[in-house]
Amino acid sequence: MDIQHLIDCHERIKPFIHNTPVLTSRLINEMIGAELFFKCENFQRMGAFKMRGASNAILQLTDEQKQRGVVTHSSGNFAQALSLSAQSLGVKAYIVMPNSAPEVKKEAVRGYGGILISCESTLEAREHESKQIAKKHGATFIHPSNDDHVILGQGTACKELLELYPNIDYVVTPVGGGGLIAGSALSAYHFGNNCKTIGGEPFEVDDAYRSLQSGKIESNKTTNTIADGLKTQLGDRNFPIIQQYVEAIVRVTEEEIIMAMQLIWERLKIVCEPSSAVALAAIINKKEKYSGKKIGVIVSGGNVDLSKLPF
Amino acid sequence: MDIQHLIDCHERIKPFIHNTPVLTSRLINEMIGAELFFKCENFQRMGAFKMRGASNAILQLTDEQKQRGVVTHSSGNFAQALSLSAQSLGVKAYIVMPNSAPEVKKEAVRGYGGILISCESTLEAREHESKQIAKKHGATFIHPSNDDHVILGQGTACKELLELYPNIDYVVTPVGGGGLIAGSALSAYHFGNNCKTIGGEPFEVDDAYRSLQSGKIESNKTTNTIADGLKTQLGDRNFPIIQQYVEAIVRVTEEEIIMAMQLIWERLKIVCEPSSAVALAAIINKKEKYSGKKIGVIVSGGNVDLSKLPF
Repeated sequence: MDIQHLIDCHERIKPFIHNTPVLTSRLINEMIGAELFFKCENFQRMGAFKMRGASNAILQLTDEQKQRGVVTHSSGNFAQALSLSAQSLGVKAYIVMPNSAPEVKKEAVRGYGGILISCESTLEAREHESKQIAKKHGATFIHPSNDDHVILGQGTACKELLELYPNIDYVVTPVGGGGLIAGSALSAYHFGNNCKTIGGEPFEVDDAYRSLQSGKIESNKTTNTIADGLKTQLGDRNFPIIQQYVEAIVRVTEEEIIMAMQLIWERLKIVCEPSSAVALAAIINKKEKYSGKKIGVIVSGGNVDLSKLPF
Repeated sequence: MDIQHLIDCHERIKPFIHNTPVLTSRLINEMIGAELFFKCENFQRMGAFKMRGASNAILQLTDEQKQRGVVTHSSGNFAQALSLSAQSLGVKAYIVMPNSAPEVKKEAVRGYGGILISCESTLEAREHESKQIAKKHGATFIHPSNDDHVILGQGTACKELLELYPNIDYVVTPVGGGGLIAGSALSAYHFGNNCKTIGGEPFEVDDAYRSLQSGKIESNKTTNTIADGLKTQLGDRNFPIIQQYVEAIVRVTEEEIIMAMQLIWERLKIVCEPSSAVALAAIINKKEKYSGKKIGVIVSGGNVDLSKLPF
């Protein structure tokens, strides 16, 4: 995927997304000894960067495909993103979600006009159900992270950040399914001035870290992390991009994630998801590396259950 | 205080404050049936609008007065605001605070270079101690809300909002000591296009509501509210302005405050104080009044103890 793909993608999705603001904190800068620029995708439509990739994927479809709708399986932000993007474009979105998903997430999908299909909570059941829907309605399956159009869309947050701050030395993102970090790494490479990409990942779901070590896509053995958006694994579309363009993936503890999350809430005065805090935690974890540098941080989303905060 | 006072004040403090962003939420607009513009003073320096008034008050001093320093009594945001403003201007700030104040607030004042003086937690002790400091050091006493320069400074948030959205029909603020609402009402009157000012106040500390009813400054009998910034009472400088320029003060319950606070956190993805949520609660409480109108909401601050959230 070259620079023109990113430029075209950004132009295509601009009417459907926000160019989110960038915030800074003097205290956080002093703490780390670097200049941090927080790209606030928690202020994105539906509350997360996923809106970018979902919009791009739907906008790529032919008119005939659009008429038949789209389908995905997700219990997280991508379910809402695909629903809202589809609604904006007059397309039907079928969302396969496990029975066990919280009612508030089901409501959010319905609120954005998504058509909810319940299934058992195994990956097999989700995939089977998605295939059935695709077959029955002729709907196009869109993967939440392992899809070229989704990867390009997610890369536009980093592109916007570099348009404002072209001399950022590092961009740091959380790593879940790999769509955000792959897209960000492409943008950093094509639009940055020698800008390097770093990923943050919880020790508890360090599949991406281990995949880079072994050279093949690894799975998570546990999913015992507060960063609930990062439990998914890499795919064959984003992994080669991550191998080629990402400098390092840094693992962080649950305590480091919570501390970084508290710092963002208290100092930037914004609500972010635990998953988002993983990027800042990864910077703090290796702060000597960043001394005097300019660092872009993608704050991935702000959809959090206020009744379940770790503070 | 006329329009030129506000213009001069704003020019004077601009180098020392942020022109804070304005956020909107489609869902909140749909809920209320109006267009709301949230002026985010939680993103102000030290996390609250108090920075504006404190800066203006210090900038008014003669060089000789500046050399002798300033003194106030406050356990809230004004303590931090005066400390940081003074630090920015190379002036000493003596902050009288009750022994019982939380350690985190004492640390914040020290972090901004304020000189902390402890006293008993009665109003008499605080006033006595402040007078002693003023006498001993020749420091100028600056009241957190009942001071013309402070009132003008606080009015600049509403002025900035009206510069962006000149046709706002209402501006709504929380009411505590009365500095913010008095300043906002002056700006709404001078810079608005028939813009009216409304105050929100908790039932538990409804001194301003009762003062407007009785025509004299009333005290609070209880201070049993989550909106800890609103426990103070009006003064002889701001009360006449409020009488002249404020259309109404609307009282809200503790449940309404918490619900509005949750709405701001979940939908705007920002961290605000319970006191800030009182303004939105007052709008929701009388939402039929605002149908189809444009409403500015001053989100007064974001300094909140994350370990004591009401959710």
